Order: sequence, then C-alpha cells, then structure tokens
Amino acid sequence: MGSPDTLVEVWRGPFAESVHSGHAVICDGTGQIVQAWGDPAAVVLPRSSSKMIQALPLLTSGAADAVGLDRRRLALACASHQGATIHVEAVADWLAEIGMGEDALRCGPQVSRDDDLRDAMIRANEAPCQLHNNCSGKHAGFLTLARHLGAGPEYIEPDHPVQRAALEAFEMTTGETSPGFGIDGCSAPNFAATMQGMARAMAWFAGANTRSDTASQAAARLVEAMMLHPEMVAGEGRACTRLMRAASEPVALKTGAEGYFVAILPRRGMGIALKIADGATRASECAISAILVRLGVLDPANPEVQAFLNPPETNRRGIVVGDIRPVSGLADGGGV
Amino acid sequence: MGSPDTLVEVWRGPFAESVHSGHAVICDGTGQIVQAWGDPAAVVLPRSSSKMIQALPLLTSGAADAVGLDRRRLALACASHQGATIHVEAVADWLAEIGMGEDALRCGPQVSRDDDLRDAMIRANEAPCQLHNNCSGKHAGFLTLARHLGAGPEYIEPDHPVQRAALEAFEMTTGETSPGFGIDGCSAPNFAATMQGMARAMAWFAGANTRSDTASQAAARLVEAMMLHPEMVAGEGRACTRLMRAASEPVALKTGAEGYFVAILPRRGMGIALKIADGATRASECAISAILVRLGVLDPANPEVQAFLNPPETNRRGIVVGDIRPVSGLADGGGV
Repeated sequence: MGSPDTLVEVWRGPFAESVHSGHAVICDGTGQIVQAWGDPAAVVLPRSSSKMIQALPLLTSGAADAVGLDRRRLALACASHQGATIHVEAVADWLAEIGMGEDALRCGPQVSRDDDLRDAMIRANEAPCQLHNNCSGKHAGFLTLARHLGAGPEYIEPDHPVQRAALEAFEMTTGETSPGFGIDGCSAPNFAATMQGMARAMAWFAGANTRSDTASQAAARLVEAMMLHPEMVAGEGRACTRLMRAASEPVALKTGAEGYFVAILPRRGMGIALKIADGATRASECAISAILVRLGVLDPANPEVQAFLNPPETNRRGIVVGDIRPVSGLADGGGV
Repeated sequence: MGSPDTLVEVWRGPFAESVHSGHAVICDGTGQIVQAWGDPAAVVLPRSSSKMIQALPLLTSGAADAVGLDRRRLALACASHQGATIHVEAVADWLAEIGMGEDALRCGPQVSRDDDLRDAMIRANEAPCQLHNNCSGKHAGFLTLARHLGAGPEYIEPDHPVQRAALEAFEMTTGETSPGFGIDGCSAPNFAATMQGMARAMAWFAGANTRSDTASQAAARLVEAMMLHPEMVAGEGRACTRLMRAASEPVALKTGAEGYFVAILPRRGMGIALKIADGATRASECAISAILVRLGVLDPANPEVQAFLNPPETNRRGIVVGDIRPVSGLADGGGV
C-alpha cells in the first residue's frame, strides 16, 4: 500500500505538535480520479461512511415504500446520529409502526452523545438502550428489509439476506469485488474497498438523479433525504449536520469511525472519499472541510466552516493555545 | 525533521484499519542513544511527560522540605491524576496546609476522569473545580515554590520565577537549549526538546540515585515517590499506574498529552522518550508497553500488560472485533 500524504497539523504555540496523514480521492461521474492524495489503491474499511450504500436495498427491494418510510426516516437509515431525543424517538416510532421493539435491534446499547440527554439519564439512573446507538436508524432499516424479505431476526450475520444485499450494493456502487469485511461497532459487517472504489461509489450516488434505473432512483432518494434532513444524519453541533447546512450548494456528507469521511456532490456528479491513516476524527473533519473549500463548496470565512477547517485549541481556562489546520495548499490550490 | 516509524496498528478483522507512527529513543546514563525509532532529533512538546522535571525546583529550592511534603505529595507533583476522590482530597489538604485555597490555582477546572465521581457530581449538580484538573498536584507544587520564593500569584506566566526555574531544570536535564514553548492545557508553559533530549533527561533521572549533587538527590526522591505511589501518578485503571505496578523491576512511567510517554529505569540508568506523531494515546500506551517488554521490564503474558500492549477492540455488544498491536518486531527483538 502506498504512503499517505500529510493532510492536517495540530499546532501549539510555535510548534506543529502532531500531524495527521491520509488518503483522499475525488472521482467524477465516470469513476475516474479527478484529484488524489496518498494512495487511491489503499484498501480501507469505510465504516459508517458506507451507510447510504447499506441502505440501498431497503429501497430497491420495495421494503421502504411498503411501509411508507418518509424522508426523515430515510435520512436516519443513513445516519450516525448522536442519540439525542429527536433521534431516539424517531427510531422508536419507526420500529413501533412495523410492529417491532427495541429488543429486535442487534446494534447494542451506547451512551447518548447528546450531552444534555446523557446527563439527564445519569441523574435519572437510566441506562442507555439500543435506540441511543448512533446506528439505530441503519438497524431500523435493516429490520424493515428483513421483515419485508421474511428473513430471520439475526440480520447482522454476514450470510443473512440483508447483509448479502448490502454486499451486492457495495460491490455494484464501488465497482469492485470487496476483499472482505470487518465487524463494525454496531455488529454489522463492514465491507472493505479501495479509496478510489469508495470515491467512485459516492460519484455514482452524486449522479443518481440523472439516471432512471431502480438502484439510481433509490440512491437519489437517499441523497435527497440526507440533504433535506441534516439534523437526522448526525445532530446539532456535529460536523456532517453543520457542514451540510453551511454548504453553498447541495452536498451530502457522512463521517465514519477511524477518520473516514465521504462527500456526494450532485450538481457536479462528483464523489469524495477520505481516510485519515491514524483514525483521528479531528483530522478527517478538518481535511474534508479543506477539500470542500478547495472545490468552492464551503466558504472558509463562514464560522460554521472555520469550526472544523481551523478550530482553535483552547485550554482549561478557555485560553487559545493552538489550532488544527490543513497543510499548506490543501484548502486552496484553485479548485480542480 | 525525519520521518516517524510505524509503531502500532489497529486491526479489525483481516484489515489493519489504522496505523500509528512515532519517534522513540532509549538513552543510557551517558546520554547516548542505545536504540531509536523515527527521528531522535525531532523537536517535540513533551507535555505532562515533563512533570518530574517541572517538579525539580520544588525540591532543590528547599520549598518541599520547608513545608514537609511527604512522598505521596511529591508523587502528586509529578502526576496527571484522574481527579478521583483520593487525588482531589490530597491536593485540597496540601493547599490548606500551606494556607492556600483552590482559588490560588491557575490550572482551570476539568471534569473528573473517575467515572463514578463524575457521575456522582452530575447527579449532585456539582461543577468540577480546579482540584479535579489532572495537573492540580503539579500546580500545588508550583504554588508551594512560589510561596517559598515570595513570588507573585501568577505562577504560570513564562517569566515568573517558578517557570524560569522550571526552564532551567529542563535545559539542565535535557542537555539542550529549549527552542521555545507552547502553553499547556493547564496554562503553564511546556518547553520543547528533541526526542533524544527527553530520553537523556529520563536517563539522568534514572541515574540520580547514584549521584550526590543537590539536583540529583532531588530527582532521586521524585522517582522514588512516583514508584512508591503509582496510584497518585495517574489512578486506578490508568496505564502509568497499572504498568508501574506490573513491572518486574522498579520503573517510573509518565504519560503526556498528544501521544507522549516516558520511562525511567533506575536499575539500568536508562531513560526512554516516545512520541506518537498523530497524538494518539492508545498508540503511546501500546508502544511504550512494547518497548518495555522488549527490554524485559514488562512480561507480555501479564494481563495487566496485555491490556495496553495488545488490547482487544470490542463493539457495543461486547464482541471482540479487532485489536491494537505493536508492529512486528517492536516488542521482541532481543532486548538492546
């Protein structure tokens, strides 16, 4: 595997205290590389950045329309939400409507990442449940599909029809045979792809609204749902939500664990895949912001963009002691 | 600056999902390099790994003995404690004995990293104070020295006599002129050194009990205090505390923010400095464990060592889905 390129630096006073390197690929609608950093052939687990791919069979199968899923729920199916009350209630309502409960989920419990809810639950001695898991929307989608297919309850097993459908969608959109999978934090298989493969998949999603085949129509609906409901895709304060709102043109953004990030740019028919080699989220948020600034999709002067592109490091007395910044030339450099 | 070497991998299923590189240097008592990875000349902020150096003037000035600081408090002066009740109470008692209160500290408040205490404080609607700050012991030491010197209350200013003394100790032990400083999370200046300079300083501490000068005697007392009270240096569950207890010979260990770690080996007169280039603590804990296994100081079969050398990655249903591991050859390789 080729070396990653240095993409992000963490400065403290006059010193670049830490550095983050990674791989990034921008693909056009034909799947060709427009620009790349690091190694486009690097094989990586895209983690939650692949959720819109995993959600495709929910629509192509007819399962979503059979139970009348609205765009809020389609956005949730692609989400790594922060387990705030709006997310938890939305997933609970969805499961109730298909006659299922929290116990049908197989994602495991997770402490809410919404600070107020987390503290309220600690005060109430209330344990987090599977609805709070950031993947509970994706799993509600898996359950909806499993039910539609008349398949068994262990929908996270790699040979379950739901996961076989997810793999098929993954290989179709990336244009590659996946070399294997790891088990994700939510217990579902997570399929590996090259960086170019994931960028190609995102470009395929970006151009979906120009095509009329069933899979493309499904993809276009998922992208539209994500862009219409950024608050469901992540949550207040989160990078995906804030940067989608801040963008000067429609864009669907999705983070993944261990420093992954993808972008879908429907107006340009372009897709972006990014992986920070060491897995740091602070660096993936900075680097994807920089690449979107470079493309003219984000305005670097917007404070909402600054919060991820060049966030200050403050110490415990609130004093600014440094910052996180993209390497010279990453954000600018004249588009592509 | 030379390139870091790959030191740690994060595996998920059959894929090395993330990788961490860094710089590490082992020095002997003469300050010469015994073994190194990455670039020994890399200039780095050692963050909290330099606390035993910052504590030296507390002893050499006579301030510690003037107020009768015991070894528990000397360990606290070198600590990044987790703000558990034993740490908070010990610092509060110390300050009370020198006629000062929490308001004299300049480290800022920090949420306790002891889960039980943190949750109890949330339930009691109690805000964290400066005593909970992981650096409050170091700052109690700074205050004790400032009081002894009759110096002003803003002891964290770079030109304050306390910080001038810390810089002098830093340059004496590293054997280098520091190229500058950053402001640390606790508002004190943090001086930069090369990796070799920090390893040399740790070797100087390691050999301190064989020398009779005032500074060496002070250093030997600090090392002894850290080894005698590992529970004060970090806290239950923490790497420094658990690995010091697990070692087959006396060793003083100290972590620092952004992936720093140092080790002092008095029996061998050797010192180690380690920096993970991207700043990841999971990798610094793994790599320092591997180097100490390599030297025969830690037993890789000990579960307490395994917890940092090769920790499993479990998902939200408690299923093992991967692990963190040192690169091939780092832990073994036949000592030095």
